[in-house]
Amino acid sequence: MNRKLQYGQIGGGQGSFIGAVHRRAAGMDGKTELVAGAFSSTPEKAMASGRELLIADERNYGSWQAMLEGEKNRPKSDQIDFVNIVTPNHMHFAPALAFLQAGLNVIMDKPMVLSSEQAQSLIAAVETSGAVFALTHNYTGYPMVKEARHWVRSGKLGEINKVVVEYPQGWLLTRMEDENKQAAWRTDPKRAGIAGAMGDIGSHCENLVSYITGLELESICADLHTFVPNRQLDDDVTVLLRFTNGARGLLWCSQIAAAEENDLNIRVYGSKGSLEWHQETPNTLQFKDPAGPVQIYKRGNGYLSAAAQRAAQLPPGHPEAFYEAFANIFMNFTDTIRARLAGREPSELELDFPTVYDGAQGVKFIEKVVASGHGDEKWLAW
Amino acid sequence: MNRKLQYGQIGGGQGSFIGAVHRRAAGMDGKTELVAGAFSSTPEKAMASGRELLIADERNYGSWQAMLEGEKNRPKSDQIDFVNIVTPNHMHFAPALAFLQAGLNVIMDKPMVLSSEQAQSLIAAVETSGAVFALTHNYTGYPMVKEARHWVRSGKLGEINKVVVEYPQGWLLTRMEDENKQAAWRTDPKRAGIAGAMGDIGSHCENLVSYITGLELESICADLHTFVPNRQLDDDVTVLLRFTNGARGLLWCSQIAAAEENDLNIRVYGSKGSLEWHQETPNTLQFKDPAGPVQIYKRGNGYLSAAAQRAAQLPPGHPEAFYEAFANIFMNFTDTIRARLAGREPSELELDFPTVYDGAQGVKFIEKVVASGHGDEKWLAW
Amino acid sequence: MNRKLQYGQIGGGQGSFIGAVHRRAAGMDGKTELVAGAFSSTPEKAMASGRELLIADERNYGSWQAMLEGEKNRPKSDQIDFVNIVTPNHMHFAPALAFLQAGLNVIMDKPMVLSSEQAQSLIAAVETSGAVFALTHNYTGYPMVKEARHWVRSGKLGEINKVVVEYPQGWLLTRMEDENKQAAWRTDPKRAGIAGAMGDIGSHCENLVSYITGLELESICADLHTFVPNRQLDDDVTVLLRFTNGARGLLWCSQIAAAEENDLNIRVYGSKGSLEWHQETPNTLQFKDPAGPVQIYKRGNGYLSAAAQRAAQLPPGHPEAFYEAFANIFMNFTDTIRARLAGREPSELELDFPTVYDGAQGVKFIEKVVASGHGDEKWLAW
Amino acid sequence: MNRKLQYGQIGGGQGSFIGAVHRRAAGMDGKTELVAGAFSSTPEKAMASGRELLIADERNYGSWQAMLEGEKNRPKSDQIDFVNIVTPNHMHFAPALAFLQAGLNVIMDKPMVLSSEQAQSLIAAVETSGAVFALTHNYTGYPMVKEARHWVRSGKLGEINKVVVEYPQGWLLTRMEDENKQAAWRTDPKRAGIAGAMGDIGSHCENLVSYITGLELESICADLHTFVPNRQLDDDVTVLLRFTNGARGLLWCSQIAAAEENDLNIRVYGSKGSLEWHQETPNTLQFKDPAGPVQIYKRGNGYLSAAAQRAAQLPPGHPEAFYEAFANIFMNFTDTIRARLAGREPSELELDFPTVYDGAQGVKFIEKVVASGHGDEKWLAW
Repeated sequence: MNRKLQYGQIGGGQGSFIGAVHRRAAGMDGKTELVAGAFSSTPEKAMASGRELLIADERNYGSWQAMLEGEKNRPKSDQIDFVNIVTPNHMHFAPALAFLQAGLNVIMDKPMVLSSEQAQSLIAAVETSGAVFALTHNYTGYPMVKEARHWVRSGKLGEINKVVVEYPQGWLLTRMEDENKQAAWRTDPKRAGIAGAMGDIGSHCENLVSYITGLELESICADLHTFVPNRQLDDDVTVLLRFTNGARGLLWCSQIAAAEENDLNIRVYGSKGSLEWHQETPNTLQFKDPAGPVQIYKRGNGYLSAAAQRAAQLPPGHPEAFYEAFANIFMNFTDTIRARLAGREPSELELDFPTVYDGAQGVKFIEKVVASGHGDEKWLAW
Repeated sequence: MNRKLQYGQIGGGQGSFIGAVHRRAAGMDGKTELVAGAFSSTPEKAMASGRELLIADERNYGSWQAMLEGEKNRPKSDQIDFVNIVTPNHMHFAPALAFLQAGLNVIMDKPMVLSSEQAQSLIAAVETSGAVFALTHNYTGYPMVKEARHWVRSGKLGEINKVVVEYPQGWLLTRMEDENKQAAWRTDPKRAGIAGAMGDIGSHCENLVSYITGLELESICADLHTFVPNRQLDDDVTVLLRFTNGARGLLWCSQIAAAEENDLNIRVYGSKGSLEWHQETPNTLQFKDPAGPVQIYKRGNGYLSAAAQRAAQLPPGHPEAFYEAFANIFMNFTDTIRARLAGREPSELELDFPTVYDGAQGVKFIEKVVASGHGDEKWLAW
Repeated sequence: MNRKLQYGQIGGGQGSFIGAVHRRAAGMDGKTELVAGAFSSTPEKAMASGRELLIADERNYGSWQAMLEGEKNRPKSDQIDFVNIVTPNHMHFAPALAFLQAGLNVIMDKPMVLSSEQAQSLIAAVETSGAVFALTHNYTGYPMVKEARHWVRSGKLGEINKVVVEYPQGWLLTRMEDENKQAAWRTDPKRAGIAGAMGDIGSHCENLVSYITGLELESICADLHTFVPNRQLDDDVTVLLRFTNGARGLLWCSQIAAAEENDLNIRVYGSKGSLEWHQETPNTLQFKDPAGPVQIYKRGNGYLSAAAQRAAQLPPGHPEAFYEAFANIFMNFTDTIRARLAGREPSELELDFPTVYDGAQGVKFIEKVVASGHGDEKWLAW
Repeated sequence: MNRKLQYGQIGGGQGSFIGAVHRRAAGMDGKTELVAGAFSSTPEKAMASGRELLIADERNYGSWQAMLEGEKNRPKSDQIDFVNIVTPNHMHFAPALAFLQAGLNVIMDKPMVLSSEQAQSLIAAVETSGAVFALTHNYTGYPMVKEARHWVRSGKLGEINKVVVEYPQGWLLTRMEDENKQAAWRTDPKRAGIAGAMGDIGSHCENLVSYITGLELESICADLHTFVPNRQLDDDVTVLLRFTNGARGLLWCSQIAAAEENDLNIRVYGSKGSLEWHQETPNTLQFKDPAGPVQIYKRGNGYLSAAAQRAAQLPPGHPEAFYEAFANIFMNFTDTIRARLAGREPSELELDFPTVYDGAQGVKFIEKVVASGHGDEKWLAW
């Protein structure tokens, strides 16, 4: 297709961290273009942000509603190809639903929405509209995570027995929500929803387990805690998992794990071997062989699976990292849009991005963990 | 004291792994001497093992009862100074009790005994006899574990919020108990007691947490599982922990974690910083500082605590490992005996070895985890 | 400045690795735009590449001469702001000189040119024109390399005694120059110049040492070797270094170091401490303190120097890598251009990119190493 | 053989580091016994040390000459089986020669002697007497070093192209020879010989290369330097190596590499793959495969070579370290003595310890490096 895909962004204006990340990730392959935006829920901030981002005045909108209206009124060939939603959690549902219902493709930050009820509405909207929908569970964009998935799916690890996933952070160890904008909305039930650490980072854990192993949950047992006085949501979570195949799991995430930065990591133990991956050193993936040496697979090599190779742009030893993984979500999402525009069915590799169903499962997981954490029942059925 | 301490060993004959480890560890400083033994519960094997170990015929006993009798009949100055018990778990209690009641010092493998009732009897015997008693929770002999304890106790980490301890092994992934002697008794309730992985390696986890943090348990919630068909005891355990100070904990151990070797490890998160230690790379200990770089403390350096320095014989960069840590348990145990023989009070540093009270706590922990694992109550009170 | 900087590229067309890297790096901050190009020395390939890159026909040139001519004929306000040269080495000099002489800003791949004579001509052109010139010694764009430089320059390491720099690669272990385009020109004296591994990767080593330490060479002693039969240039190089302050150095690079990928690394030993950095794990930098624990500094933290902080876009624990480092060279280069366009003096932080003088020193280093490698004199004066 | 081997020690008395190491290493398997000694060149110190070590008065000698005399006068069956020499370098030759000439087996610290002339005399004495002689190049006792040797010798790496060996230390960064006994003799030409760092640690490098690769030197080019003012011997050494098969090598060692501890390490690059080993993490050995993942071989596993398995006492994951490696030198040395006593030929595995020929090569290497370091010739022929 001989043109760049054009997109608009909702949220992500001045002072936003994740908005800028989305823009870099979207633009990395040089094949998309930011042309419109409603960059804040405060119209003046929205407009100011848009000007900074060199958005043309007529597509610099004061609200997402205005953007929806404005874009629909443009000639079909000059509308945005997709919308990118990067607002706090409570602002995901309404614009996503509206744009989907208008037939527009949507890519959106996680967790998807605030309740399973909302999730079902989005599923219906996606299914009805036929629009392409993606959720930016960005960690599944890493090439070596794709390799891990390939190993489990292809049987390299045998039957899966145990999964351990961790997401330790320490940045909320003190009560910084009074001063820090990022902390403020993430610990505020009105904007973050019913969960704190669980929604923010625990949802990545659930998605990573699901993406790599495909195991289905049977029941869970959660301990949810808030360490920082007067904080309204959980900042430390541990969950025991039981899967339908008999496997056991363990998930913990914390935002009070002093001095930890962002080391999301996973270990999967099977009957034939095990794997280990760490987000802070994402270019390697370990295979532990019960009968031979530990093997360190490295990104970019020809011995990797097709999905892992497709997700790597640089040769071995030239490390890729957070942005590149994030860009891979956009790459598959936009390649799927391009396939649709070209009238062809996207390939399995192109369709490799988090869907509305993954998002709904994540929302259900948050609900279940919060219920279990507050309940007395040992094992809460999935 | 101008002579070597003399000791006898119970168990640890031909084919034993841990018996040989104890002998090396005991002998490492050149200040103890193995002079007697009842090296097997089968008299012929016991005698054959003793001959291999160059034990004089008159002190090469066919049973521990014979050894107790034989040594008591020797002149006081030529009796053994302590007995070292390295039998399977079910054979710990009887000889330990008998030797203690005879006033002899005892060092013994873990877990201490099979029940809290037995544990109380041993406590009484120690208190009544005044004998020195030690349990070989050998991992607390590592210099950097002693440094970790020092950090927590001296307040370097602040208030402790979270503890994560793991002990992944993979050697029992298949049903090898039919062929392998080590596997056979560890999976046999008659010899191992009520717990498998939990008793064998989970007990080290509990002891490590207790040694380093000193936290007291409030309640636990366990998931106990046996993956290998027809195995009689657990081979995979996960436990949520709640401590009386409000801290949360997480303990998991497994013997079906494919291709894992012996990486007991612990992370402790406090209000001022956190620590991390791994048994497979035991010469380093990480301090993670919320306000500065991660610090890697290395064994043998002058900036370490007195306990960590005392436990290291070699200069920095000359690594010490499993045997040396094990030897440190013996060093403190025998130095305490020497102090007593010399009529002086042992120092705090000399008394730094696992006691009968630690052993009793370990036994209680095993009982509680098994009860929780089989029960429906979410939080089982400690 | 309320517009994107526009640039043209010379070389970097279909099948080029480094051309695509430059484009991603240039575009990462969303503030530059590729608008013109002469993407190959073969006009048809050039045009085909340009069409793929969505270049407008009138600025899709068949040769760099045509591009120079074409751009000069455009209204000043619609000319390119800089040219980006990514050809093989032998094609650096002519276009760089021509564009500089036309007053255009130039950013170019390394090694700069084929001889010190050419280097002097470029220096003269830069000085005469006042154009901004940068060389993409991309590894100095890493935040933690900037931190390392800060440490040495600010005295944290004391007087520098020893420097060890390595660049092991294994991709040319066999004679792949017959099949592989990248290998072909790098081993061909007509296109690569007088050096093989030394020019390609050894020049990065020299630049890294110079950037971090600022030490001046006094003399060198080189062993230059070609392992692969019939290869025309060196594929393995070791150089002893003596610096004017009395420090000793050691530089080795190889393209036959089997299975090594791209682990450029450096260790600097001073009178007060030492540092170590590895390109394959670029987000950390070690400080080794003679009197305390090893310290692992991590990218993105507030305790780092201004230069290191400016070079990092993501928070701690969200790794950045090769592209981001490369983009930092472009960021400082383009910020310097913007400062000039805005009529202000660029700051020291903005001017932090490799200059024409660095390039000339690199060329001299290549010449000296080749001379020493072929000579009998032990120490070749700098 | 149904008794412990008995040995005497020369040197290694109070305050000695290496003397105590030798005793622990010798005693680790419980099959040797220290029964005699001349623990210092000062008779009073010698006797005091012997008493501390619980040596019987009649075998606690005031000089090595007295020991030789005293032991020769004992009944053959009650003489020492070997002598263990741990004096400073200048005191190696005389006792070694005398004991060998008396037909006694000798194990001795490195570097062997002070000159090639002395080395030739020792060779003659060994050959004439038929005594067993070993040098404690202890680092070759590590199981994973034996595995590395196996790989090279068995062709796993193909033809060897390049060897890089390093031994960085920082403990002599300041002029501590005035206060520290270990530093004093190592920097004193009268006791250490013609080389400082080169003799002390560089000799281990040479031996490690030779042990693993078996390559023969063709020529060398050395840079020898003394950084600390008024120090009499080198404290920093870099040597380029050329081997007869065309391979290139690089050896550097330093005692002024600030804050480095003892990380002797080696990388060997072949035509089929490469290996890497580090003394500070000795339980692993990397194999880097040009066509597959990096492989981490771990000590204690059944997939290792016979030599590596024989050298490991503990199961996988139970780390062994410096003492255990040192003990392996003693194990093979004493097993060879036992074989001789039993009238059988020692096996190849038993004979795996550093010989008098290895020692002579080490002395020659020191002489050549010093000559090259002081000379103007670029390549000094071997």
